[in-house]
Amino acid sequence: MAFTIEFQPLGLRLQFETAINALDAARQAGIHMMAVCGGEGTCGKCVIQIVESQSHYPPSPTEAEHLSPEQLQSGFRLACMTTIESDAKIYLPPASILEDQIMQTEGDGYQQDLRPAISQKMIALEKAHLDDLVSDFSRIKNAIGDPKLEVSLDVLREIPAILRQNGWKANLILRGNHLIHATGKFVSAPLGLAVDVGSTKIACYLIDLESGKTLTAKGTPNPQIAFGEDIMARLAFAMQSQENANTLHSLTMDAINQTAEEICRRANRSVEDIADFCLVGNTAMHHFFLNLPIASLAVSPFVPAVTEPLYPAARELHLSAMPGAGVYAPPVKAGFIGSDHLAFLYAADFGKDQRTRLGIDIGTNTEIALQAKGKIVSVSTASGPAFEGAHIAFGMRAAPGAIEHVRIGDDGKTEIDVIGGQQAVGICGSGILDAVAQLRARGLLNQRGRLVRDRECVYQDAHGKPIFTLSGGTAPVTLSQQDIDQVLLAKGAIRAGIDILMDYLRITPDAIDEVVIAGAFGSYMLPQHAIGIGMIPNIPMDNIKVVGNAAGVGARMMIVSTQARREAEMLSEAIEYLELTVYPEFSIFYANGIRA
Amino acid sequence: MAFTIEFQPLGLRLQFETAINALDAARQAGIHMMAVCGGEGTCGKCVIQIVESQSHYPPSPTEAEHLSPEQLQSGFRLACMTTIESDAKIYLPPASILEDQIMQTEGDGYQQDLRPAISQKMIALEKAHLDDLVSDFSRIKNAIGDPKLEVSLDVLREIPAILRQNGWKANLILRGNHLIHATGKFVSAPLGLAVDVGSTKIACYLIDLESGKTLTAKGTPNPQIAFGEDIMARLAFAMQSQENANTLHSLTMDAINQTAEEICRRANRSVEDIADFCLVGNTAMHHFFLNLPIASLAVSPFVPAVTEPLYPAARELHLSAMPGAGVYAPPVKAGFIGSDHLAFLYAADFGKDQRTRLGIDIGTNTEIALQAKGKIVSVSTASGPAFEGAHIAFGMRAAPGAIEHVRIGDDGKTEIDVIGGQQAVGICGSGILDAVAQLRARGLLNQRGRLVRDRECVYQDAHGKPIFTLSGGTAPVTLSQQDIDQVLLAKGAIRAGIDILMDYLRITPDAIDEVVIAGAFGSYMLPQHAIGIGMIPNIPMDNIKVVGNAAGVGARMMIVSTQARREAEMLSEAIEYLELTVYPEFSIFYANGIRA
Repeated sequence: MAFTIEFQPLGLRLQFETAINALDAARQAGIHMMAVCGGEGTCGKCVIQIVESQSHYPPSPTEAEHLSPEQLQSGFRLACMTTIESDAKIYLPPASILEDQIMQTEGDGYQQDLRPAISQKMIALEKAHLDDLVSDFSRIKNAIGDPKLEVSLDVLREIPAILRQNGWKANLILRGNHLIHATGKFVSAPLGLAVDVGSTKIACYLIDLESGKTLTAKGTPNPQIAFGEDIMARLAFAMQSQENANTLHSLTMDAINQTAEEICRRANRSVEDIADFCLVGNTAMHHFFLNLPIASLAVSPFVPAVTEPLYPAARELHLSAMPGAGVYAPPVKAGFIGSDHLAFLYAADFGKDQRTRLGIDIGTNTEIALQAKGKIVSVSTASGPAFEGAHIAFGMRAAPGAIEHVRIGDDGKTEIDVIGGQQAVGICGSGILDAVAQLRARGLLNQRGRLVRDRECVYQDAHGKPIFTLSGGTAPVTLSQQDIDQVLLAKGAIRAGIDILMDYLRITPDAIDEVVIAGAFGSYMLPQHAIGIGMIPNIPMDNIKVVGNAAGVGARMMIVSTQARREAEMLSEAIEYLELTVYPEFSIFYANGIRA
Repeated sequence: MAFTIEFQPLGLRLQFETAINALDAARQAGIHMMAVCGGEGTCGKCVIQIVESQSHYPPSPTEAEHLSPEQLQSGFRLACMTTIESDAKIYLPPASILEDQIMQTEGDGYQQDLRPAISQKMIALEKAHLDDLVSDFSRIKNAIGDPKLEVSLDVLREIPAILRQNGWKANLILRGNHLIHATGKFVSAPLGLAVDVGSTKIACYLIDLESGKTLTAKGTPNPQIAFGEDIMARLAFAMQSQENANTLHSLTMDAINQTAEEICRRANRSVEDIADFCLVGNTAMHHFFLNLPIASLAVSPFVPAVTEPLYPAARELHLSAMPGAGVYAPPVKAGFIGSDHLAFLYAADFGKDQRTRLGIDIGTNTEIALQAKGKIVSVSTASGPAFEGAHIAFGMRAAPGAIEHVRIGDDGKTEIDVIGGQQAVGICGSGILDAVAQLRARGLLNQRGRLVRDRECVYQDAHGKPIFTLSGGTAPVTLSQQDIDQVLLAKGAIRAGIDILMDYLRITPDAIDEVVIAGAFGSYMLPQHAIGIGMIPNIPMDNIKVVGNAAGVGARMMIVSTQARREAEMLSEAIEYLELTVYPEFSIFYANGIRA
């Protein structure tokens, strides 16, 4: 029988047909909850309060470890440990929602400077009469005391009617000294939309530009996926015709518009109140969302059309917003070092101190920055989509049915965690990393990266090739030698990038004070396994910091502060881009990376 | 039999069915020739050279006065004295063409500062390669050495293909530090279009922005006329609906676009080479060409939406031009003091010295500025369209068949000059002024402005009302008491404006060092008659300067110089607007003005 879960304070109601884990239910509702451990019950972050319910939810021992008796008494539970089976009203404490807490390893919200580009002013003017013949716009300039106020024709055309229909009162929205909108009604606070346009997911954050607070947020799949899983496929598609390129642009903007509509509705606001955007993404996404020509990005030497920060009008990009709304597109650095990398490094305080720090955002292209000896050098390495589940026989995204964690005992016995707790249908990035790391640790994978055939848990497939079974039954999930090769190529590329950076700046792994890992996969993978397979050098676990969608944090820091924009632009200037493919003996570094 | 006149160096060919005065033929071809005397053969300015012809054109005694025997021998004639009757090729010496000579009373071209907003740069770049991965736009910035170079998305989108299709060479068009256009082909010189949007006529001047030279020019009727002869009628029409307002805007822009097409073709150039516009006009025209709401202009207190200078994109106004072309709309001062008034005063050097000067542009609204005692004060007075031939029984525009000059002998005998030398069909402004002034001088009009019935040349019409016959025959042209009343109201309004300015600044007529008269009517009227009927105070004729379309000159000065724009804007700030209707005892000034 269908039942409803109501999430407060968001006012979201969702219907379910069968019992569901509260964390999964929140995910389905588009709520990004704190879940550092990936729903294992170990981090204790995904705290919820069951305010009303038809069923009784006795606390598990794990929950008793993380919550006080008083909390348990008041209905507090861990979402990942609670399966809701009937109507319930669940309150989400602010600390449990990811949007305000993304620098999760620090335990509290990120620091932000609040100096938005947008401001709002209410004015009440003297009515024009024969002894006071000042023009409408001059009257406004005088009222706000800015003789340099500028205005576009569009806005100017609205002003006379607004003034006369509202008794010479108006609410003005300003970007710096540009009057971008005038209205008779009061806008409770101008909104900003910070968007991280990822190749896979578009993350939108709705920001109150007066308080700097994130009101709501939502991730939506990047619809470009229909035209290619990876960036190169999409670039190839876009190169075929301007129409194709326009399609990728429009789809992206439509997705942002739809998501903005939804999260504005959730926050009881209108997209008409959005006065400013900050869009970040890798360089291909950047060119797609700006509808810049991508031909030069698709072929060597992979040169962007532009690297400078841009300030187009929202209207030019077909973004739904207040008339006159603007867009801030932070700088990109190179063909494969985008503004998402900059936003990540900015959010993670790169360039703010003299520590030796490594920043890694793992994806199909993995961007790596090394800060050392007063420099910040960035590389991009084509690590491929293995950790996103692609090119792996049973690979899949982190969705219900995916094996997200794997433990292999000394005896070769395998334990798995499946997202949603259901029958495994595939394996996602963090599961793949676990599996390979543990196969290696248990000697099931030899030093040359081959599955050891003579071990009883390694089977042969129909073609006589070795496979390792993760989940048995009628629909088994297995890992083949070919799958493992893909993983080794991916980690080899990442390690080669790190090693070349260390070689270039002449430092050794023990000099590294901190490794900052960003991105979706980076948030769910277990860093010790990344070290285990040699993807990253052997660094004390305490010095590894996982920061989730740091690019989204950076975009949110930039949308609320022109100062942050200036600082990020200076950081971009400071970053040195190193082209790996022309680095001396690149192929040897790569070969060593695969073996490491 | 049809014949063709070819005008060189313009390369214009026109067919005619019947013999035509060469000055009229040039007018029909859209060529504005010097003709200070209005085609009387007295000024000697409309010099042409008949280079080839089928007929013989013996010089008249008048021509022999103005031209040397050598000139006559070489085919030089006065256009106004020559009637062409068969195929001819006519060369127009530069000095005869009005466009370069508009400050005609000075005898040579106006002074201009040449610092255009637009510049052009050819660049040749190093091709991008793996050791030089600078983005396309950064590469351009480096090449022209401007780290602050800005660019719009539109232009940015064109750059990668242009660079790669032209061997990394490009021709850049810049407005200040904005890259507004990039092309693979060489633009011989960016063009500017200076436009004076008059209520009756739109005058377009095509300017070479590198030399500052006016290449060609053309006046075209303002198509708004179809929606009302005068401004108030058009404002009323536009107020009925946004659609109506849009119609007036589009018609104006279409007329400018068509004229630009034609004069570009004449100059062997393309409208795609137009990089900058300067549009001036009275405040209603200004609001129409910018498509600003006019509701507040149409009713008291007649407040403009904006008085500030504006810089919209040509695209926003639907002007045909180079992509990225801009428009400069100089400031307006008040509801009835537009940017044409500013352009006139700027071209006439108002604000440049301490002389006491009166500037008058006579039209349906007559704008008058008085510079005295370190101030410049402007008024606008509703003089009505009498001097444009409207509201006068036989009134018409200055077109073939119009009586343009009238001489009345002591005996009441009347001599007339008719444009085109044909049978008179009506009377235009300068003829109306002549007639009224001479009626007064000969005592046919008494001090109260009444036609004197008992004089033999004043007849009675069918209703017993007095009329004065200017041209007899089967289709006589006459002037009635009602016509004369209209003229007296018009001159009374102008005189009241002048008197109030003198009263406000506490000066007397003898303090006035110079009167500058602008505008079409002002160019053709005889100033002594304007004094004769009391339209302007009694000022020595030597101190009266007629400057033709000075607003067009001002627009041309501003399109070739950002310095001129700044100076004109400072002049606009310096001008004080005085509202006549609230001036103490305005009605007494008006009554005195009519009687003067």
